[in-house]
Amino acid sequence: MFKRCLTQSILLLFAIKAFASCDPLPSWNEGATKKAIMEFVEVTTNPLSPDFVSPENRIATFDQDGTLWVSHPMYTQVIYSLDRVSMVVKENPELADVEPFKIVLARNNDSIAKLSTDDLLKIIVTTLMGMTTDAFQEDVKKWLEMARHPRWKRPYTELTYLPMIELLEYMRANEYKTYIVTGGGQDFVRVYAEKVYGILPEQVVGSIGGISYGYDKQGKPILIKDPKLLLNDNNAGKPEGIHIIIGRRPYAAFGNSIGDQQMLEYTKAGSGKRLAMLVLHDDAKREYAYGPAKGLPDTNVGTFTQQLYDEAMRQGWIVISMKDDWKNIFTFDSNP
Amino acid sequence: MFKRCLTQSILLLFAIKAFASCDPLPSWNEGATKKAIMEFVEVTTNPLSPDFVSPENRIATFDQDGTLWVSHPMYTQVIYSLDRVSMVVKENPELADVEPFKIVLARNNDSIAKLSTDDLLKIIVTTLMGMTTDAFQEDVKKWLEMARHPRWKRPYTELTYLPMIELLEYMRANEYKTYIVTGGGQDFVRVYAEKVYGILPEQVVGSIGGISYGYDKQGKPILIKDPKLLLNDNNAGKPEGIHIIIGRRPYAAFGNSIGDQQMLEYTKAGSGKRLAMLVLHDDAKREYAYGPAKGLPDTNVGTFTQQLYDEAMRQGWIVISMKDDWKNIFTFDSNP
Repeated sequence: MFKRCLTQSILLLFAIKAFASCDPLPSWNEGATKKAIMEFVEVTTNPLSPDFVSPENRIATFDQDGTLWVSHPMYTQVIYSLDRVSMVVKENPELADVEPFKIVLARNNDSIAKLSTDDLLKIIVTTLMGMTTDAFQEDVKKWLEMARHPRWKRPYTELTYLPMIELLEYMRANEYKTYIVTGGGQDFVRVYAEKVYGILPEQVVGSIGGISYGYDKQGKPILIKDPKLLLNDNNAGKPEGIHIIIGRRPYAAFGNSIGDQQMLEYTKAGSGKRLAMLVLHDDAKREYAYGPAKGLPDTNVGTFTQQLYDEAMRQGWIVISMKDDWKNIFTFDSNP
Repeated sequence: MFKRCLTQSILLLFAIKAFASCDPLPSWNEGATKKAIMEFVEVTTNPLSPDFVSPENRIATFDQDGTLWVSHPMYTQVIYSLDRVSMVVKENPELADVEPFKIVLARNNDSIAKLSTDDLLKIIVTTLMGMTTDAFQEDVKKWLEMARHPRWKRPYTELTYLPMIELLEYMRANEYKTYIVTGGGQDFVRVYAEKVYGILPEQVVGSIGGISYGYDKQGKPILIKDPKLLLNDNNAGKPEGIHIIIGRRPYAAFGNSIGDQQMLEYTKAGSGKRLAMLVLHDDAKREYAYGPAKGLPDTNVGTFTQQLYDEAMRQGWIVISMKDDWKNIFTFDSNP
């Protein structure tokens, strides 16, 4: 089979190479960070380099919240779940007097911001339980069209970082498979990842909720969301999720918080040249500033501790400064 | 970014199209089955057809045991696990007197063949527990080199069906992503799927065992196999596994037993043209004959009931007769 198609195969390879030679990363300022990215791609894709990686092994993983798009003041999926609470309480009025639903219904933002991860999980699980995967997709789609970010008054899906969108395209042009590896729900992010990032559903790794196969009243096969968590794709869950969904160690990994540390460790522990990067939000004017690394304000949403910063320096992980490394921040900057 | 590369993109698309025009399926006899496959691929890839499917949505799923390679007299992974028992008992001598290990150590094939799924799972879990994913891969690789099928005296990895290998290549040449969706262990099949089928690890969906991220004595990150099952990728587990790993409904699905029924239902329940096929092992001379559909001998390994056969006829699933539809059976037939 293979030999018959030799001419066509060569033509195909040639075309892929030509496609890969376009100029990349115009929204990154010249400097050590941009240089490190381009050097990594050059040495891992040049067949003459000792660090050459064959195309099928070129895996790059990207955290989403705070790495590819805005995650402040609250994670987008959390806002979606809070918005669903009033609908769910309408159908189950007894929940109105039960915490954490009571706090959410009171719309007290300070109290909501202090909800524990367990409370948030309880909300997410309760608001989704019993939905079919198809109904969930439709619901998220509708919500994304309607919801607006409080600061930029734009749909959340427009609040992506242009330098990272360029980076995704640059990696793909060099035959890297770009995966999202997010603490957010896999089913949630898959609804919009193709449109927003050019990342297909099968290349989204996230927290995995249980599902059950069954039939609706007409006997049509359906998948129903269960109130259980198969994988919490945060911290140690990130390399575990990568193993389950991708089955191989990435060559490059990008994150922005303590939840990404294990993914970066796992990536760098592989042989040969590997790239690990962390976005530091140090640009209050154009986006947000939080750490608490380097004296930046503390936060619960995408925490970047001084310890993580020190570990990055020790391990040769590269910290991306939003303020210094990014010429533009938002994708909408280039499409006014 | 996109516009800059227009010429290169067109060249790339043209090359892919040329590549896809090679002659397919020489090991399939002319007839209704081969025609159904080729018609399906034609109408779903022709942009002028009402059933056209965009390339990113072209997902085809293939069961492995009995669909892509031989599964009789026993599943390959079961034989691997049985072979591991003696090693494990050497390290844990107390297991020698405990069932089901006692039966396995006695090498009584009749008793082994009657072990329940629970017993087999107990064996698999016990023999793998505490191994790192890297050590497991190495162990499987070594075993596959050494082990031989009792009838053909060849490595198991050579016992693939040539018509199905051609079908995989034909689908891929038409920009279908080919996935294995197997009841076997995802980690097991991923060891050899690339070499044997040209299917990368991230396109293998299988039963998923738990894993835990940790560090070895030198502080190096490792993933360790846990004694729990996150997904039993059989029956209803197949559409569930497809949703978890792929996130979309397939357009074509291929199986050979009752364990594949829900995958085929789920596939056909999608809109537009979908293809569902079942391999019937009705060729005792060249391979094996088992059902019990159509009066073929009964079996526990890849059962194809009369009920499944009747359902296939009712639903328009196509039954592939090994005897009538396949000119060659094995890949080694063409490489003597």
